[in-house]
Amino acid sequence: MLFGNPGSLHRLGQCAELSFTEAMNEVSGILRVLPDELIVTSGGTESINTAILGYTAANPRNGKHIISTKTEHMATLATLERLEKLGFEITYIPVNRLGEPDIEVLEKSIREDTTLITMTHTNNETGAILLADRISGVRKHTNPQTAIHLDLVQTLGKAPIDFRGWGIDLASFSGHKIHCVKGIGLLYVRKGIRILPLISGGGQQRGLRSGTESPWLLRAFSLSLRKAYEEMNEAMPRIAAYKRLLCDKITSLGGVILSPDSASPYIVNAALGSFESETLLHALEAHEIYISTVSACTSKKKKRSHVLSAMGIEDKKSGNAVRFSFSRFTTFGEIEQLCAALDRITDQYALK
Amino acid sequence: MLFGNPGSLHRLGQCAELSFTEAMNEVSGILRVLPDELIVTSGGTESINTAILGYTAANPRNGKHIISTKTEHMATLATLERLEKLGFEITYIPVNRLGEPDIEVLEKSIREDTTLITMTHTNNETGAILLADRISGVRKHTNPQTAIHLDLVQTLGKAPIDFRGWGIDLASFSGHKIHCVKGIGLLYVRKGIRILPLISGGGQQRGLRSGTESPWLLRAFSLSLRKAYEEMNEAMPRIAAYKRLLCDKITSLGGVILSPDSASPYIVNAALGSFESETLLHALEAHEIYISTVSACTSKKKKRSHVLSAMGIEDKKSGNAVRFSFSRFTTFGEIEQLCAALDRITDQYALK
Repeated sequence: MLFGNPGSLHRLGQCAELSFTEAMNEVSGILRVLPDELIVTSGGTESINTAILGYTAANPRNGKHIISTKTEHMATLATLERLEKLGFEITYIPVNRLGEPDIEVLEKSIREDTTLITMTHTNNETGAILLADRISGVRKHTNPQTAIHLDLVQTLGKAPIDFRGWGIDLASFSGHKIHCVKGIGLLYVRKGIRILPLISGGGQQRGLRSGTESPWLLRAFSLSLRKAYEEMNEAMPRIAAYKRLLCDKITSLGGVILSPDSASPYIVNAALGSFESETLLHALEAHEIYISTVSACTSKKKKRSHVLSAMGIEDKKSGNAVRFSFSRFTTFGEIEQLCAALDRITDQYALK
Repeated sequence: MLFGNPGSLHRLGQCAELSFTEAMNEVSGILRVLPDELIVTSGGTESINTAILGYTAANPRNGKHIISTKTEHMATLATLERLEKLGFEITYIPVNRLGEPDIEVLEKSIREDTTLITMTHTNNETGAILLADRISGVRKHTNPQTAIHLDLVQTLGKAPIDFRGWGIDLASFSGHKIHCVKGIGLLYVRKGIRILPLISGGGQQRGLRSGTESPWLLRAFSLSLRKAYEEMNEAMPRIAAYKRLLCDKITSLGGVILSPDSASPYIVNAALGSFESETLLHALEAHEIYISTVSACTSKKKKRSHVLSAMGIEDKKSGNAVRFSFSRFTTFGEIEQLCAALDRITDQYALK
């Protein structure tokens, strides 16, 4: 069923196409968008690249000014740098200690030639949640022509997405953040919004993303998404309780929680006393507990988080920052193990 | 092992990275290239887009003239159209009835500002094989600075690839043409050749293709490639014999073989009497035999093959053209079934 080429005319191809279409219908049904508003990509990074480059290229008359923040994922920051070289002007709205972009500055920054606002809904390093409805509100009374692209990679499957309320014109998603195999992502393009393709060729996916469609990968995605949505409401308060337990433990050990209180319960960014990020990472590894320092995508290149710096966190603290990530599969037993491991590690180091 | 993020610092990430690296080493070993000369993409189309756009963007001083043919896959033709809009000049070398680009015209067409020659090694519609060493020879004595990109999607796993002899600087590959799952491809970039990324972000794959690497997909690719190479030599003469059987049958039924004699045995393009392409496709479908009209990527949009037109095949014949594709899994029994089905179909239609 999945072997054929969805582009072929014969029955084997039609089966593959049907399989692709069915999976797409399931995904769009869960997200409450139209199937034609979704494009399958190879992942979050391709989606973000396509959204930003594709939208600006397709709408040159809307201007060459883009608004974003310095707390974006590298996929966004690198793409914006590319556009800067092409003559675009980028305004990075400052964020406060909670990771929130300054709404007043945003209001003043939106101009007639502001073509796009691109921001992350759930920050991947801190879990900080964007007040997307406020961004959308400001856009509405300043320049309704400005499009909004949200990086929803960390939101998908963890919290409901309000496409209309958040004024979303474009949105990027990644499969492996909802436990799908790596190598698939989605791009949402609201009906009526025009983009140019990043990858052109055979004209698949309405010409917006060429390349043979992979029914198998999309089915894996739709299955992962369905499971995530089925368990989302049960998981949310449970993970929030785990987060409180972990935060209490970290605080009791003299650590500092760097994630805002209002952040997604799935991500806890914290600095534990005088442990450097990597020291704690490897100490916990000995307990078979795997945490992150900065984003995995950049962890081998730099020690300081650009996200925490942008939030005004002192270098000393951000040098000790680590990121605990939960999923709906996280159990109470694992949190107990984590807390016990943190106790033991701090005891051991105190004795040295 | 495959669950971690290859970019992460901890053991789980290292396992994923190791798994990715091991698979890459196996792939590069089989192809006899360096692991650092390969980039994992989402498929042949992305590889071709990256090769052409990435090379020309990274080497602006080499000129804005590109040489190709009209028998390329749409991934190439669409990308060249994009470059044309950006001020590049494209020369399409005419091909003869055998699908071979005219070497004398090529020789005269290479200029000082010819930055790239991009051609397909095994044509996807006819199986016509490019005399790549001759192209490379002409390049050598006209403008050695001109880079050569070969679309090797249909060659991979079916015939040996001589990277050096064919003068390859860039080459594109697709996973699903070697029976891997759809959603992975490779781009070869010879050591010393500079390209810019099409997709930027976290800087994975030496900054040339950002996005979380998928160890799982690359392992699937390396397994598919290993199997294909193990069985390549056995399959080649066997498939060639099948091809002769099929061609003899088609000819005996009054049909015409449109693929050149020297073509890859894996692809037979033929026109059978007065059957329109789609009629024969659906007639064979009733026998559970699945063939193609034009490329699957374009089969729903047009009836005439741009490849056959470029080869000077008359519209009447190309309107009846179908494509039989074999794989190393094709059996003698299947060929017998196909020949019997062709007999029966022509008998039935003769009676009407």
